[in-house]
Amino acid sequence: MTISKLFYPRGVAVFGSMADGKLGFELVRQIVDGGYGSVVAINPKSQGAFNIPGYDSLSKVNQVLDLAVIASPANTVASILNECGAAGISAAVLITSGFSEIGNRAGEEELLVIAKRYGIRLIGPNCAGIVNTACDLFATLETRPPAGKMAFISQSGALGGAVLSWAEDQGVGISKFVSYGNRIDLDELELLPYFAQDPETKVVALYIESVKNGREFIRVINEFTKVKPLVIIKSGRTSSGMRATLSHTGSLAGLDAVYDSVIKQSGAIRVETVEDMFDLCKGFSQLPAVKGKKIAIVTNSGGPGILAADRAESVNLQVSEPSQKLLDYLSGALPPNCGLHNPYDLTVQGTEEGYKNVLIEVLKEVDGALAINVATPYLDSVSLARGIYAASQETGKPIATNFMAGSIVTESIKYLSSKNLPNYQIGERAISVLANMAEYETKRQGRLPLVQEPVAELTFSINSTVDFLEPDAMRWLKLNNFPVPEFNYSQNIEDALDGCEKIGYPVVMKVVSPEIIHKSEYGGVIVGIKDKPQALEAFNRLKQISEGKSFKGVIIYPFINKSMEILVGMSRDPQFGPVIVVGTGGIYTEILHDISLRVAPIHPDEAWKMITELKSFPILNGARGQEKCDLLALSNLIVNFSLLPFRYPEIEEIDLNPVFLSSKGALIADVRVIRK
Amino acid sequence: MTISKLFYPRGVAVFGSMADGKLGFELVRQIVDGGYGSVVAINPKSQGAFNIPGYDSLSKVNQVLDLAVIASPANTVASILNECGAAGISAAVLITSGFSEIGNRAGEEELLVIAKRYGIRLIGPNCAGIVNTACDLFATLETRPPAGKMAFISQSGALGGAVLSWAEDQGVGISKFVSYGNRIDLDELELLPYFAQDPETKVVALYIESVKNGREFIRVINEFTKVKPLVIIKSGRTSSGMRATLSHTGSLAGLDAVYDSVIKQSGAIRVETVEDMFDLCKGFSQLPAVKGKKIAIVTNSGGPGILAADRAESVNLQVSEPSQKLLDYLSGALPPNCGLHNPYDLTVQGTEEGYKNVLIEVLKEVDGALAINVATPYLDSVSLARGIYAASQETGKPIATNFMAGSIVTESIKYLSSKNLPNYQIGERAISVLANMAEYETKRQGRLPLVQEPVAELTFSINSTVDFLEPDAMRWLKLNNFPVPEFNYSQNIEDALDGCEKIGYPVVMKVVSPEIIHKSEYGGVIVGIKDKPQALEAFNRLKQISEGKSFKGVIIYPFINKSMEILVGMSRDPQFGPVIVVGTGGIYTEILHDISLRVAPIHPDEAWKMITELKSFPILNGARGQEKCDLLALSNLIVNFSLLPFRYPEIEEIDLNPVFLSSKGALIADVRVIRK
Repeated sequence: MTISKLFYPRGVAVFGSMADGKLGFELVRQIVDGGYGSVVAINPKSQGAFNIPGYDSLSKVNQVLDLAVIASPANTVASILNECGAAGISAAVLITSGFSEIGNRAGEEELLVIAKRYGIRLIGPNCAGIVNTACDLFATLETRPPAGKMAFISQSGALGGAVLSWAEDQGVGISKFVSYGNRIDLDELELLPYFAQDPETKVVALYIESVKNGREFIRVINEFTKVKPLVIIKSGRTSSGMRATLSHTGSLAGLDAVYDSVIKQSGAIRVETVEDMFDLCKGFSQLPAVKGKKIAIVTNSGGPGILAADRAESVNLQVSEPSQKLLDYLSGALPPNCGLHNPYDLTVQGTEEGYKNVLIEVLKEVDGALAINVATPYLDSVSLARGIYAASQETGKPIATNFMAGSIVTESIKYLSSKNLPNYQIGERAISVLANMAEYETKRQGRLPLVQEPVAELTFSINSTVDFLEPDAMRWLKLNNFPVPEFNYSQNIEDALDGCEKIGYPVVMKVVSPEIIHKSEYGGVIVGIKDKPQALEAFNRLKQISEGKSFKGVIIYPFINKSMEILVGMSRDPQFGPVIVVGTGGIYTEILHDISLRVAPIHPDEAWKMITELKSFPILNGARGQEKCDLLALSNLIVNFSLLPFRYPEIEEIDLNPVFLSSKGALIADVRVIRK
Repeated sequence: MTISKLFYPRGVAVFGSMADGKLGFELVRQIVDGGYGSVVAINPKSQGAFNIPGYDSLSKVNQVLDLAVIASPANTVASILNECGAAGISAAVLITSGFSEIGNRAGEEELLVIAKRYGIRLIGPNCAGIVNTACDLFATLETRPPAGKMAFISQSGALGGAVLSWAEDQGVGISKFVSYGNRIDLDELELLPYFAQDPETKVVALYIESVKNGREFIRVINEFTKVKPLVIIKSGRTSSGMRATLSHTGSLAGLDAVYDSVIKQSGAIRVETVEDMFDLCKGFSQLPAVKGKKIAIVTNSGGPGILAADRAESVNLQVSEPSQKLLDYLSGALPPNCGLHNPYDLTVQGTEEGYKNVLIEVLKEVDGALAINVATPYLDSVSLARGIYAASQETGKPIATNFMAGSIVTESIKYLSSKNLPNYQIGERAISVLANMAEYETKRQGRLPLVQEPVAELTFSINSTVDFLEPDAMRWLKLNNFPVPEFNYSQNIEDALDGCEKIGYPVVMKVVSPEIIHKSEYGGVIVGIKDKPQALEAFNRLKQISEGKSFKGVIIYPFINKSMEILVGMSRDPQFGPVIVVGTGGIYTEILHDISLRVAPIHPDEAWKMITELKSFPILNGARGQEKCDLLALSNLIVNFSLLPFRYPEIEEIDLNPVFLSSKGALIADVRVIRK
């Protein structure tokens, strides 16, 4: 596998000037200082550096080389790649800039053609390089991080460098690092499957500003998170962020809500900041799985315990109360004035034995714990850390720690870190980590794959006429097994009156005209028609308002009363393809933003989640004496609807708005279809 | 002023054992090591320590003493206080525990009586002590923090200690610190006014779990924030947090939403974590005021710039675009490939001069800036810091910094700190600080005092009858200038029919009975009565449903159509007194939680803010073709309503629900009054 030659090369060639201070020179220094053995330098002057031999051509090198690290000027890279190909090198890291980021797309395409010809896989160009701590390979100018279990893929080279510099302070070690810059070849789509199998990596963090192939991205992160946790920072969340993304990478950033739902639908975890990313990766790297939402907080100080409990509730962890048995144990074991309820407060009297015993007992009833120690200069914190470690050994359950504060806990934090007990500066951070770890396990256990893309034979053309009027659209929906009310389409007054009789009064009559799209606002919808005279008047009025426009008749429906109005819509995101929106209808959709969004196709379980996410879900579900709506009917409708964009690739957008929903089921009251 | 003797004593007496390792001994060590000169030790053995003289009685001391620090056993404290009083000591810090926290309230009350007798002001008991870095006084066992401009008051001794330990790491210095423990005497109510005048203090942070006197707390923090910024952590936000608060302090925690609105109504800033507290205090201590919401981000790396811009938008700062003039300047001054839009990206080519010049120019158009430097091991970051400092000197405007990451920026951060430029680990934190500082200035400039409590002569009794039925309540509301619809109260059928005529059909008829509270659910409200026969039928039906209950007649209103339903309610919070809630009526209040809450009385500007905070505000304000409601009428109603609990101290709760609101004004459709 070529990617493994990228990370575990048998030899590395660095291309670039070996003059003091030049990029090539600094890269060799870094690789040599990092401890990687087998390096050569290639440059026109055959110059070496740091006891590394220099050659003016690969052909003169007498050792096996798998990886080229290229820092020579942009206009030399193509011929270097040709040379690499000829010499059997199978991977190249292109540090060199001066390509698409300054508009030089042709240069980039040339590189890709050469790489494809020889089967060379590329990282870059315009990137900060790669790291593999497992073989002491630091092909980057950035700080060399300590080894550990977190892999990091960064679209931003500078942010990648900052993360490497910061890792040690944050108590997190790095397994592998990739900054892929302009990503003309390798990016997360292939790196993630590789890291899924990498024994050095327990968790992957990913910083992205945009993705190239949205559907493939969805597939890859869904597959990956079945195996390992994935933490994503997606920047460009808000409009000025997006403006910056645009100018920064020149690539189109997808709508943030869609990214959010792509991540939500997968098992990945989105965080906002690099701090949160480190927090979470530290937890995933060091702790066993958090297999449920019940946690205990054991502290020697009330205040921080309360703050942590506050946070726990706000992130949906259960700060669960002790059983009577546990309560009996605690009241026997602890000195008076200790807090016997969760958060358990050992007070300043908390000892090594106290922490150990209380943690062991409370962990019998919960899925994880936070141990807080507010240290004082006159107490030995390291012994408390020892007690906590003993409990983690005895129980095998996850314990995060929060030893506060400053230099008086430096020694204990070192101890905790050596025992793989992640420490957080404040308890709130530890709690957020436990919550995310628990959520990952839930999703990992319970998550369903995206519905398979529907097979091709389902596809048939909508119809061949130019106008796709409401009666056509309703017939078409019916053919596709959607709940459409009985209707009658009439082009003259006699048929219309017959139609009203057939449907049965009271009825609703709507104008049919390709030129009248917003029928309601145009006065083109007349409701509550009770008898023949009213029907006659309605028909005439609809004909009248169409004057000067193409009048194609009227469509008649039974009058439906007392239902909730739902909207179900589909549009195509430029990155991720078809996206489905469900919301409560009417003006409330826009004002209360009571909508739920997913990438299509939608699995039935996910459709149900969309419904429960709506703010108005309690109303739909019969709260406070409301009629309980047939939510299964809505869920079926959503699933079926989410297949339409695949069945009918010619559709750009569809809105079912409103769908009437009641205890008797769902009925589509209006539809709008826009073709590509 | 006695409080100044607490912080600036002419001499300190430490009471407690001077045996090695005892509290008294450690306190003397701390005071001596901290550098405070004038200390004596008092204990039965006349033992001194650390070259400090020891006496068995204050009467033997031959120097001026203002402050006693007491760490001797609980049962000795009363007599020590007597001794202090006799010796003219005017302040005492009671470190000793063993009082109300273990149920010993009598012991505490005794201390207070003695203190009052002699005019001694007390901190504690059961507290972690006090610090005043301005005179090197560290009367605490906790870590000695560096001197600075932040004062900290903590209800939790342990949390207070953690904050002191952490201050140096966080780059924040402390002016004064108080841990008041069981607070039998001095607490924030008196300390805040003192700190408002303290020249050493620029910002105060306060950690509270509960307050003792809610109305006074409101007054004090409102007054304080006119002078200086106040940052509050209030724990016990969620139910398990509150449970912990209860067991921890034994005091009743007010409803969190009320605390939130008390803080919102004042100019104080509530934060969730100690990290956020430090962030904010660092900004307030070191930066000039942030006088508006427009900010610029100047960076040498795209990714962190985008993340900061994302945060800025989410906290309502404006990442404003450059003027054409600025754009012209930047495109002339910067190398190609730099980002000329906000966030301004100097790229890795950013230099000392570049940061300086760009910051100076962009700060002409904005109110503050964030300067980001993602350092690399091979570039000199200190020179960039110098450029930023030069710009801050030249412009006098606030510049926060984010130098990343790890040890490669240690030197630059030291430099920044020495120049009062606060540095944050991630740009997002710096942005949140700038946002809060800007918000503080807005509130400080634009904030109005709470309406004065209304004068006593407004008070008159509701009425003397036992039953306060709907007709009485409506009459009473009318007397108090509330918009009440025309109504007719009739006790027999003839009067009722006359009443309907007078009001004019269609009318609404409601049963009047002290035993039927929830009239609607009981079938006691009949709407849309169109004529005399319907009125007759309605009266009979209402009489019929009252069978077996006390029937007091019917109340008749005009039928009001097509209005928004609003609820306006008052209840009394045990901590803060009368609290006003405004919400959209009907089931949406409970399900969508579309409510807004304030402590009464409510200023007209604050009433307006309550209305705009409602999720349904756009609907009330005429969005999407809705009828625009008379919001001024609603605002007047809220202000007037918020005075009722003061005019009528005998009222426990009132609900106006619904209030009909339309373009024509507000009309109260139902009222419920509960007396104490």
